Amino acid sequence: MQAKFKNSVSLPLKNVKINDGFWSKYIDLVRDVVLPYQWDALNDRIPGADPSHAIKNFKIAAGMEQGEFYGMVFQDSDVAKWLEAVAYSLETHPDSELEKTADGVIDIIEKAQQKDGYLDTYFIIKEPENRWTNLCECHELYCAGHMIEAAVAYYEATGKKKLLNVACKLADHIDSVFGPEIGKKRGYPGHQEIELALVKLYHATDEEKYLKLGKYFIDERGNKPYYFDIEWEKRGRISNWTGRISNRPSKNSEYNQTHLPVREQSAAVGHAVRAVYMYSGMADVAAETGDAELLNACRRLWNNIVSKRMYITGGIGSQAYGEAFSFDYDLPNDTVYAETCASVGLMFFANRMMHIEPKGIYADVMERALYNIIISAMSRDGKRFFYVNPLEVVPEACKKNQTKFHVKPERQKWFGCACCPPNIARLLTSLGYYIYSKNDSTIYINLYVGGEVETELNGSKIKISEDTQYPWDGKIIMKISLKEEKDFDLALRVPGWCSNASVNVNGKNIQLYSKIVDGYATISRTWKDGDTIELLFTMPALRVRANPKVREDMGKVAVQRGPVVYCLEEADNGANLHEIILPKESQLRVEFDNDLLGGIPVIAAEAERVNNNWGDQLYRANTSAEVYKENIKFIPYFAWANRGTGEMTVWVNEK
Amino acid sequence: MQAKFKNSVSLPLKNVKINDGFWSKYIDLVRDVVLPYQWDALNDRIPGADPSHAIKNFKIAAGMEQGEFYGMVFQDSDVAKWLEAVAYSLETHPDSELEKTADGVIDIIEKAQQKDGYLDTYFIIKEPENRWTNLCECHELYCAGHMIEAAVAYYEATGKKKLLNVACKLADHIDSVFGPEIGKKRGYPGHQEIELALVKLYHATDEEKYLKLGKYFIDERGNKPYYFDIEWEKRGRISNWTGRISNRPSKNSEYNQTHLPVREQSAAVGHAVRAVYMYSGMADVAAETGDAELLNACRRLWNNIVSKRMYITGGIGSQAYGEAFSFDYDLPNDTVYAETCASVGLMFFANRMMHIEPKGIYADVMERALYNIIISAMSRDGKRFFYVNPLEVVPEACKKNQTKFHVKPERQKWFGCACCPPNIARLLTSLGYYIYSKNDSTIYINLYVGGEVETELNGSKIKISEDTQYPWDGKIIMKISLKEEKDFDLALRVPGWCSNASVNVNGKNIQLYSKIVDGYATISRTWKDGDTIELLFTMPALRVRANPKVREDMGKVAVQRGPVVYCLEEADNGANLHEIILPKESQLRVEFDNDLLGGIPVIAAEAERVNNNWGDQLYRANTSAEVYKENIKFIPYFAWANRGTGEMTVWVNEK
Repeated sequence: MQAKFKNSVSLPLKNVKINDGFWSKYIDLVRDVVLPYQWDALNDRIPGADPSHAIKNFKIAAGMEQGEFYGMVFQDSDVAKWLEAVAYSLETHPDSELEKTADGVIDIIEKAQQKDGYLDTYFIIKEPENRWTNLCECHELYCAGHMIEAAVAYYEATGKKKLLNVACKLADHIDSVFGPEIGKKRGYPGHQEIELALVKLYHATDEEKYLKLGKYFIDERGNKPYYFDIEWEKRGRISNWTGRISNRPSKNSEYNQTHLPVREQSAAVGHAVRAVYMYSGMADVAAETGDAELLNACRRLWNNIVSKRMYITGGIGSQAYGEAFSFDYDLPNDTVYAETCASVGLMFFANRMMHIEPKGIYADVMERALYNIIISAMSRDGKRFFYVNPLEVVPEACKKNQTKFHVKPERQKWFGCACCPPNIARLLTSLGYYIYSKNDSTIYINLYVGGEVETELNGSKIKISEDTQYPWDGKIIMKISLKEEKDFDLALRVPGWCSNASVNVNGKNIQLYSKIVDGYATISRTWKDGDTIELLFTMPALRVRANPKVREDMGKVAVQRGPVVYCLEEADNGANLHEIILPKESQLRVEFDNDLLGGIPVIAAEAERVNNNWGDQLYRANTSAEVYKENIKFIPYFAWANRGTGEMTVWVNEK
Repeated sequence: MQAKFKNSVSLPLKNVKINDGFWSKYIDLVRDVVLPYQWDALNDRIPGADPSHAIKNFKIAAGMEQGEFYGMVFQDSDVAKWLEAVAYSLETHPDSELEKTADGVIDIIEKAQQKDGYLDTYFIIKEPENRWTNLCECHELYCAGHMIEAAVAYYEATGKKKLLNVACKLADHIDSVFGPEIGKKRGYPGHQEIELALVKLYHATDEEKYLKLGKYFIDERGNKPYYFDIEWEKRGRISNWTGRISNRPSKNSEYNQTHLPVREQSAAVGHAVRAVYMYSGMADVAAETGDAELLNACRRLWNNIVSKRMYITGGIGSQAYGEAFSFDYDLPNDTVYAETCASVGLMFFANRMMHIEPKGIYADVMERALYNIIISAMSRDGKRFFYVNPLEVVPEACKKNQTKFHVKPERQKWFGCACCPPNIARLLTSLGYYIYSKNDSTIYINLYVGGEVETELNGSKIKISEDTQYPWDGKIIMKISLKEEKDFDLALRVPGWCSNASVNVNGKNIQLYSKIVDGYATISRTWKDGDTIELLFTMPALRVRANPKVREDMGKVAVQRGPVVYCLEEADNGANLHEIILPKESQLRVEFDNDLLGGIPVIAAEAERVNNNWGDQLYRANTSAEVYKENIKFIPYFAWANRGTGEMTVWVNEK
């Protein structure tokens, strides 16, 4: 079957070589530190960190060890996400030792799989009789989805089929249990993930049944009668989490996006990670099947997020309660959730939409999430992580006002619920998927990352090398290598933040004005070997303001340069950052700080600070606050929390 | 024993006649509607409201009815607080029917009291074997405190001793169980209240043992070894609330102010109602015993509240979690708690401090709480109440962002936990206690309320009548009635909000400048019958700003006139109140609104509104927001939420 709504596809990871001043060190860090560290964590070898027990669970399920299940009901997914990241890493950077380790884990997983294909260590070990009885709470389909994603990635990286066979057997088992056919359960996952995984499995195997099963889960979700209520009644209304009578699931159906059939949904609600994983699966199914109604739902939901429910950093999820979206324009900076995993999922969704329709906004949002949330969430040593990504932090508030207890002013070690670190790992190791895409006539450059890509267009091999200091500099030099001349379109994304772009081809300026459509400048020509493209995005420091409907940002300004959002930190500007006022006429000067994280551009400005020397007066009538001049310094948001615990703010008062 | 640190005392309620354009209708409302309504509620006769069962619990405990205990573990206190309010009402406004009803309740209470003096219907009915085993959670001493307060008030109002005898028997029983003596428990209440009640009982009976017992509870609190941990271990670590193993109480010792011996406390922490009830008891004990260390602790705690932890409305408690204080200058307007009861308790504390030392700040704070929180918290029909008193409300946020779920945009009916309505009732019926105070040489006028007071100074009868439109007008006319000439000081409080006060005595202006000390203008003279004092406090609309350390109020202004804080409401100004900007130079015009709540002064101003017509743009670079002019209207904060559900804000953006 031919995908119906796909304009372009990603290039295989092995064809994308990243050699970039900015990104290579992150990818190396994941390979050299994060993956080994996570391997230690999965094996409970990190002193002082919560135990994971994830590998042990598989060994116990496989009959290789004795013991009890330990961990979250979705503990298996940590292993799967690690394996998926390992696979991406192996695809671009073979490593026989690491591959041997992964093969060893896969052997255990294979042994743990039950004869009928079932695979979930929680139920295998603890409640074999209760398989598939509590989809709402128990994450079996979620874990299956991650295992399938790992299997496809590992197969594509190594050509080895063992885990892919496990995944197919598991998917076949699931197919035998769930579906619209008589005798099957009309269930769907409590935490979406398997939908997009099944579309990957369909691509890897060419077996349409997997696409059909993925589509079923999308189609069935939110129908009446309400499945989660039915299974809740059947199990005596008992919660798996507490062992006691729980609320009727339909009372909280927005949480897992089961409040409406997905085609009728318009607003991003509920648990943000569940939401964007589901939207990604919806986009996949729409693309493959040509389901216009489903695609329109994706567009509506996308639009709702990016025009009403997304932080300037690319964070989503405005509240800790339910790790969830709240309502339009509700973007509190201090009580925010903005889970790292949610921004990873937003990138999944964006990438899929970008493949369906080439609009710059999709890559703009990917950039926001990538250059701000994703790399902020991981420490410079790859061992500590942010789960919550606040835009305003006062350390005392994180300890003393419960609305901010979930906000941590410092990155944390591997958690009991370790969802975010492996998600960062699998995203960064597969970064190549997001940079380029192509169709029969066009090569798209979506993100600007130094390196080299090789691909084929109608039988012609094309190589493009890219050299850039992005995101610190807006100049990108590309060189085309070809065996023979070739007509094709090169679609260069012009970032949404850029108001002044120019392109030279072989030194000659190309008039861009008429060529930019939907955020891409398309250059159609007969390309020759050695053609050189010089792209220049003027990159001044920008004052960004939020839509006035965003209550929390009223009267405030954020500073952004290129895709990088900046912030003020106590280390540079003292405490009480809210007392700083940036006058509208004050110039933003880009300066280079040699000491910060090995040297990065910072932004300096002359500002005012309100004199807070009021003594014991808490309220005062008819006297304006005095101000004095002060020099302030903005650093990239992703660089915050590397110099001790202190205040941080992205939005700064303006006058 | 002579009180050691008392500068002045309240006058008996029966000597203070309130006849005031502003207050009389509230007091009448309490008498005519609130008390009967609460009586119905206590007897479960309010359709649609949560059942109270409070009277029934007493009947069951008295053996008059069969049944089970129902309600909160402190349900008894609702009856006690109602009785106390009834007593105050009877003292100024005799009503034989109401007195008969109260006598009937007292008969039941007397029957419910156990032979040894014990009285708490929860334990009498449900767990007689577990009396006094869980002070931390179970409110026995709290309920006892309220019963004692009711008994003293009823005795003072009616001269009847039945309930006073019950209270003495109960206090004697408590005295036999708790204390520093060998064989007694070294316990103290989980919810403070009995301390101040025991000092009242001491005054009513002249029995020093009650003062001693109250002092013991103050002295013992927060000592090591930690009593709540000890009793928790003894009862097998089980929580009364959940029936399951609970956290070690010392982990949460700030919640009930047991983290330190009270004399070492400097910051107002934990549950705000517990805190101010305790500080009131501390002030009582310090005043009676001359304990300078204890008084200094009271001063420190007072100062911490009013200079760092109090909303402009007189609300205290910055977070819903634990209904608690958070930290210095943390005064979020939208996630606020500011429980009504906490402001009632703050008035208790202020009144006691005012009697210890005559400083205007105490009455200033009483005024803040009284004219803003207290009367705002009750609906105009006396049947609905605010428990939480926000300074900024967006109704959608109250439903969709959990940090604001506790904030209600509309007053609520009688709750399951009905602490606030009877607290308002007992405060308003005893308002006379707060208006005047005296010592041998001075009569203090602390609040300006129309009416008449009669008192004696060294054997001379003095009557002062007062006529005023306060708080809408700053003119107060007082007339002195005397049998014979009398030398005494009249100390007139000059409110903290007033920057221009003048006084005429018999039409002759008195030079005030040198006479105002600590917020009181003291006029010493030989007063004659018929002397007339005309006080004039200039009362313009003020722009009030918060200390710059208050993050949430930075760049914002509040409007206050006299003691009344104003707010913007959606009904007058449309939604998105945060988009309104009040220029510094814009004039605040006091206007009279005939339609609002029977006619009250409102404040009009010309402001700007930010144009929010940004379409789908969520963030925008380098373009300032457009603004257009708009007339805005402020109404008194206490008058909000009377015209449908909508937004409200006290703090308004300023430029």
